[in-house]
Amino acid sequence: MNNSENSDKRYFDGDILIKNGRIVTVDSQNSIIDNGAVLIKSDSIIKIGNSDEMAGLNAECVIDAEHGIIMPGLVNTHTHLPMSLFRGFAEDMPLITWLNDYMFKLEAKYIKPDTVRCGTLLSCAEMLLSGTTTCCDGYFHEESVAEAVNQSGMRAVLGQGVIDFPAPGVVDPSLNIENAINYARKFKNRYPNITSSIFCHSPYTCSKETILNAKQAAREIGVLFQIHVAETKAEQDQIRLFHQKTPVEYLDSLDVLDRNTLIVHAVWVTDPDIEIIRERGASISHNPESNMKLGSGIAPVFDFISAGIPTGLGTDGSASNNNLDLFTEMDTAAKLHKIHRYDVGVLDVLSVVRMATIEGAKAIGLGDITGSIEIGKKADIIILDTHKPHLVPMYNPISHIVYSVSGADVRDVIIDGKIVLKDRKIKTLDLDSIMLQATEFAGNIVL
Amino acid sequence: MNNSENSDKRYFDGDILIKNGRIVTVDSQNSIIDNGAVLIKSDSIIKIGNSDEMAGLNAECVIDAEHGIIMPGLVNTHTHLPMSLFRGFAEDMPLITWLNDYMFKLEAKYIKPDTVRCGTLLSCAEMLLSGTTTCCDGYFHEESVAEAVNQSGMRAVLGQGVIDFPAPGVVDPSLNIENAINYARKFKNRYPNITSSIFCHSPYTCSKETILNAKQAAREIGVLFQIHVAETKAEQDQIRLFHQKTPVEYLDSLDVLDRNTLIVHAVWVTDPDIEIIRERGASISHNPESNMKLGSGIAPVFDFISAGIPTGLGTDGSASNNNLDLFTEMDTAAKLHKIHRYDVGVLDVLSVVRMATIEGAKAIGLGDITGSIEIGKKADIIILDTHKPHLVPMYNPISHIVYSVSGADVRDVIIDGKIVLKDRKIKTLDLDSIMLQATEFAGNIVL
Repeated sequence: MNNSENSDKRYFDGDILIKNGRIVTVDSQNSIIDNGAVLIKSDSIIKIGNSDEMAGLNAECVIDAEHGIIMPGLVNTHTHLPMSLFRGFAEDMPLITWLNDYMFKLEAKYIKPDTVRCGTLLSCAEMLLSGTTTCCDGYFHEESVAEAVNQSGMRAVLGQGVIDFPAPGVVDPSLNIENAINYARKFKNRYPNITSSIFCHSPYTCSKETILNAKQAAREIGVLFQIHVAETKAEQDQIRLFHQKTPVEYLDSLDVLDRNTLIVHAVWVTDPDIEIIRERGASISHNPESNMKLGSGIAPVFDFISAGIPTGLGTDGSASNNNLDLFTEMDTAAKLHKIHRYDVGVLDVLSVVRMATIEGAKAIGLGDITGSIEIGKKADIIILDTHKPHLVPMYNPISHIVYSVSGADVRDVIIDGKIVLKDRKIKTLDLDSIMLQATEFAGNIVL
Repeated sequence: MNNSENSDKRYFDGDILIKNGRIVTVDSQNSIIDNGAVLIKSDSIIKIGNSDEMAGLNAECVIDAEHGIIMPGLVNTHTHLPMSLFRGFAEDMPLITWLNDYMFKLEAKYIKPDTVRCGTLLSCAEMLLSGTTTCCDGYFHEESVAEAVNQSGMRAVLGQGVIDFPAPGVVDPSLNIENAINYARKFKNRYPNITSSIFCHSPYTCSKETILNAKQAAREIGVLFQIHVAETKAEQDQIRLFHQKTPVEYLDSLDVLDRNTLIVHAVWVTDPDIEIIRERGASISHNPESNMKLGSGIAPVFDFISAGIPTGLGTDGSASNNNLDLFTEMDTAAKLHKIHRYDVGVLDVLSVVRMATIEGAKAIGLGDITGSIEIGKKADIIILDTHKPHLVPMYNPISHIVYSVSGADVRDVIIDGKIVLKDRKIKTLDLDSIMLQATEFAGNIVL
């Protein structure tokens, strides 16, 4: 980033003292510090404490949280960032129709490096404005995704997609895997806050060989392996028919489940499947709103958490949600599982906040870096403006975060010690230009 | 309202031309008018058409919607407005514990005319800021609710609560019914945009005599009779045990179901119950988020709509939701029923928008007055700012309204031809003073 180019766009990256807020740390004790302050030096959190006691500390920039909530930036464990360009294009239809008749066709025709870049910038803007500081993405032309995410200032794990069909940019499906591996090697450390990944679409769209090759490459390169698993009943039936196994058993038989594997969805899983996932140390991305909207099913998330499986929240792409707001996703998750089990004790508010922060960070391999406000961690912090009628009075900040806050209540966002959103103005992106490009893109679509 | 007292607080009530927006009329054809304009004279809509053709029309105030969405103000068919004061106080527990161990105790100790007024103003502020222009409420000290709602400029149906326990302000439960009847008579036409109602709490908290007397009085006075019905399985079991009938059959045997009865919740209803409701012409208020959060159940809303029963959306009180944002309620409703039925065709986006507008208005007896943008109707209109990354591009405004818009996207609100919210500033209420009072109230609670 060029910080001197345009003062309107410039973000601040000197030392920062955030004071005067209620800190929801999401540390191992889930500590909450009233009238708290956080001192950030360079990219890291170096001190956390009482606001009055820390008032005398030196920092080039002091941010007054004005009695709002100071919390870790949210972690979105599953996105397809460029798909914001297709939000609302096809509604009220099942996954398989939505994919085959709309999304795959749209992607084949319209997804190119420049459109991927535009859709990703649009998504990053939405995420910053709703308090997400880290995301885990899988798509095509992922090098353009990476470039755009880097421009936004966000932290991310980004995987090039592998599928046994012709994909955007690749006419010969056999080249998909090669592309994905090349991308993963090239972009593993290209940008400081972004690491690469390999994203296999699913066990029903990738052959055994593709999955094996993709996981082997991910192991060799040392990056996260992401895969949609057991999203629908139809997938479970198909894998059972072809392999006489559940999707999880099938993947386990291929030895692809380990601590560097993120299982996305895990809706149609059995108790033995959960035990396999736990034993292998794999993680799960739970996407309740997408699963509801596509009629896919309700994942047994409470069992994942009880088993100690790192389980994060994800929005999925905007075309099946239709937004990237993790605050409303928390609200939905907390309510959905209560009604699914007819048990209001399921998924208490604290568990949900942890899913959207530290557990999500763990699930994508960044648990030591982000997801909580602790000394030594990267400064990925958001400030919520709670001086609003829907957030007053406040008996319990955790309850408010889950049930009452929306993304629009995010006032400031700091990522890696840099202020990227200040008073709801994005410092890293030219929002008007991005929205204009997205509108022009949509105006030209003919399917 | 005194319009000249303070120019900051003054709302505009001259003739208004809204231009340059996409009008989602929610009329009988669900017409959408691109580049549309609406002319408002006094309190009513007098012309709807093309923005360029209407550009020459005279109006004292011209509002440029800047290519946003112009739509009817939302109708919240079930609230307990003062309960915003208890939002987040008690979480993750079943309805009966939540009511008996927390809400009823809090209400007995702290609900008084001045606190009711404060909580109601707080809720009105939240509703205006999230695009709700009409609500249907049931609580205690409802005369204070009415006074506060009138001050906010909102349209409402407000019912004094009847319950066979000591209620706030009434030590002797036998006086509850008398209070409710007196209120209904006195406040039926006291304020121009507010009508009264009688709100019987439920068949499990009110005796047969109480219900009969309340409905008889509502019939005599000519006002809506509201009642929570079949909210939980426990209620269904209890009514079956005592009366050998479902809650709906029981109420029907008392002859209280008719076109002026609003059945709230209707979660645990049978197919014959639905047929009874349809035959009697009664209406339903569907409160999906509250029902999920309290683990009550999932109402068969698709069957209500298929049967032609006027069915509106409600948030319920803020203490069981925990917000009054009908946009996120639409999102939840659309997704919940898809996953409940494993059928993505259930509750399409248009049906959901109708529930939150015209069908809700019909359900509370105001279908001829509000809930759609049509010539002759009262001008209850909201303008959404769609120049935001989560709303760009826009292929389908109906899909955006349900799945992507949040209350925070509401820019302007007009009720009864008066501008009550302009650029997200409330013209009728002193927001800071209300929030301060609410915070002070919360600080003094000892349960």
